[in-house]
Amino acid sequence: MRLAVIPGDGIGPEVIAEALKVLNEVVPAAEITRYDLGAARWHATGELLPESVLGELRQHDAILLGAVGDPSVPSGILERGLLLRLRFELDHHVNLRPARLYPGVRSPLADPPEIDMVVVREGTEGPYAGNGGLLRKDTPHEIATEVSLNTSFGVERVVRDAFARASNRQRRHLTLVHKTNVLTHAGSLWSRVVEEVSLQHPDVTVAYQHVDAATIHMVTDPARYDVIVTDNLFGDILTDLAAAVTGGIGLAASGNMDVTRRNPSMFEPVHGSAPDIAGQGIADPTAAVLSVALLLDHLGEHEASRRIEASVAFDLATRDHQSPGATYAIGDRLAALVSSNVRTG
Amino acid sequence: MRLAVIPGDGIGPEVIAEALKVLNEVVPAAEITRYDLGAARWHATGELLPESVLGELRQHDAILLGAVGDPSVPSGILERGLLLRLRFELDHHVNLRPARLYPGVRSPLADPPEIDMVVVREGTEGPYAGNGGLLRKDTPHEIATEVSLNTSFGVERVVRDAFARASNRQRRHLTLVHKTNVLTHAGSLWSRVVEEVSLQHPDVTVAYQHVDAATIHMVTDPARYDVIVTDNLFGDILTDLAAAVTGGIGLAASGNMDVTRRNPSMFEPVHGSAPDIAGQGIADPTAAVLSVALLLDHLGEHEASRRIEASVAFDLATRDHQSPGATYAIGDRLAALVSSNVRTG
Ligand SMILES: CC(C)[C@H](C(=O)O)[C@@H](O)C(=O)O
Ligand SMILES: CC(C)[C@H](C(=O)O)[C@@H](O)C(=O)O
Repeated sequence: MRLAVIPGDGIGPEVIAEALKVLNEVVPAAEITRYDLGAARWHATGELLPESVLGELRQHDAILLGAVGDPSVPSGILERGLLLRLRFELDHHVNLRPARLYPGVRSPLADPPEIDMVVVREGTEGPYAGNGGLLRKDTPHEIATEVSLNTSFGVERVVRDAFARASNRQRRHLTLVHKTNVLTHAGSLWSRVVEEVSLQHPDVTVAYQHVDAATIHMVTDPARYDVIVTDNLFGDILTDLAAAVTGGIGLAASGNMDVTRRNPSMFEPVHGSAPDIAGQGIADPTAAVLSVALLLDHLGEHEASRRIEASVAFDLATRDHQSPGATYAIGDRLAALVSSNVRTG
Repeated sequence: MRLAVIPGDGIGPEVIAEALKVLNEVVPAAEITRYDLGAARWHATGELLPESVLGELRQHDAILLGAVGDPSVPSGILERGLLLRLRFELDHHVNLRPARLYPGVRSPLADPPEIDMVVVREGTEGPYAGNGGLLRKDTPHEIATEVSLNTSFGVERVVRDAFARASNRQRRHLTLVHKTNVLTHAGSLWSRVVEEVSLQHPDVTVAYQHVDAATIHMVTDPARYDVIVTDNLFGDILTDLAAAVTGGIGLAASGNMDVTRRNPSMFEPVHGSAPDIAGQGIADPTAAVLSVALLLDHLGEHEASRRIEASVAFDLATRDHQSPGATYAIGDRLAALVSSNVRTG
């Protein structure tokens, strides 16, 4: 197993160290190559993602990313030039974001039900396409545009993936989230594709919700969701909210996946580089560790993945949430749990 | 005071009846003209918003709308052809949506703080412009686009309005919500305008949040918000979420305002026509009543507006939230409270 690791900025390297500690317990033979990308490199060299590095990344089975971003870099530079560039270049069309309320974890909701959903967010088009511009900048007649691009090809492959995932889950329920009553063109395409693909999945029940209504139900009735399929921007918004109601982005993992396996998929915590707590050794590495579980599952290492997730679940059920411990201590605990499972299970 | 009333579909006419009952207590001389627009008219005549009706609506001081929409009408027809057409034709650039957690009202949040914010949502451009299309429809090469249009003119007037509102509030805090790191063109325009206008408001503190992060804070720390200014689509999403955390869209009022007063502004509950409970007389008219308060405030009837809001606050603090009563009973209660305030205050 050849893995590329991009520790990144802020707490990125801190949580990645713990994620690799845990990975080492289940796949000690993994070959790890680190790539130094992010704010520091940009400041030092002006480089975001050199072609040569992109070429090398392509030679790996998967990529593990910590987080990129720093207040010293103008907004958009690292996002568009590095993170989104990786997602687009490597055709990460399925942005997979599970949201589960683990026993023991406190939700900000008063009366949280069991929550166990997975959001399948489109990852390579929509309003993220980068298509748009400024006309007459800095004049009273300035116009800024952002174009959401949605293709039959792009929508269909992510909808198919979402249905396949729904089929494999217990509840077999899929919700399309969009804003079809306002974004009528894109909404029409998404609705028709979901309808067509649903004909091949009579086992999956299908619902539709407008994105605004979905945010309401995410806080009043999140148990209704099983699989959500949605576009790139709505998925960005909904997954942060889903993470919040299931205990925070400190626990949320994600996979940016090319499910055709033509390109390596990339796994990363949903949280950012958190410059405010960087360097203090207090970041929670759980989301990074869960991202390793997603990575292993994607590479067919289902048993190793399951062991990591079970260890996280055990730790969350038993940890003192007021003082969960330092970054390294949580990593040590999770590594020990994973390894004890090796010996006993 | 000449008011146009569009009761609309579903629970629209039910809640409007109560809203007018309350209005009658404070402005008995208001001249009311009803306009029959919505699903029924569309089914009967194919008409959505005839030019002649639009012309008549323009002759009023303000418009009160119940709700439009019915499952029998394909998605988008009434929204684009009636509701959004009114907002665009009447240049409703300030879509004002207060969200306050009234004492006595149950929030879905475990530990709700005091919440008292107002979202100033842009209402006439952004992704709502209706600019987009379908190419090669129903082929494997289909492309659907949606174009977000943002102008210096359009952004500046709503940002100015938001700053003015923030200036008049106790906390004097304004948060711009956008997604500047991905939607870099529109994000750049919004950020620059906020920065410029802020120079004229040194009394107002300014913050920025990405829309995804804003959904997190809306459930973990909603007290941080005072005035939020944001684009049409982000505002749509955030205001439903803000309504949810402050007790639900059954209580959320809104104003679609042309603050230049060239066109009549339109006030409506944030909730929809709720066909599932229509005709049963159980809809909560509170949001419609609060919309009347916003309407009166806009027309300079500050005292009448204040009396209605105080009556709603009193009723919410004292009502049995398990069984708040039938639609007409809530209306009766609010009308009585408003009128008793007349006699005593
Ligand atoms: C950093 C940003 C570009 C990114 C996104 O918008 O996709 C982040 O919010 C995420 O969800 O991974
Ligand atoms: C019905 C729909 C067009 C409308 C909108 O998206 O603005 C509604 O959700 C609202 O918030 O008033």
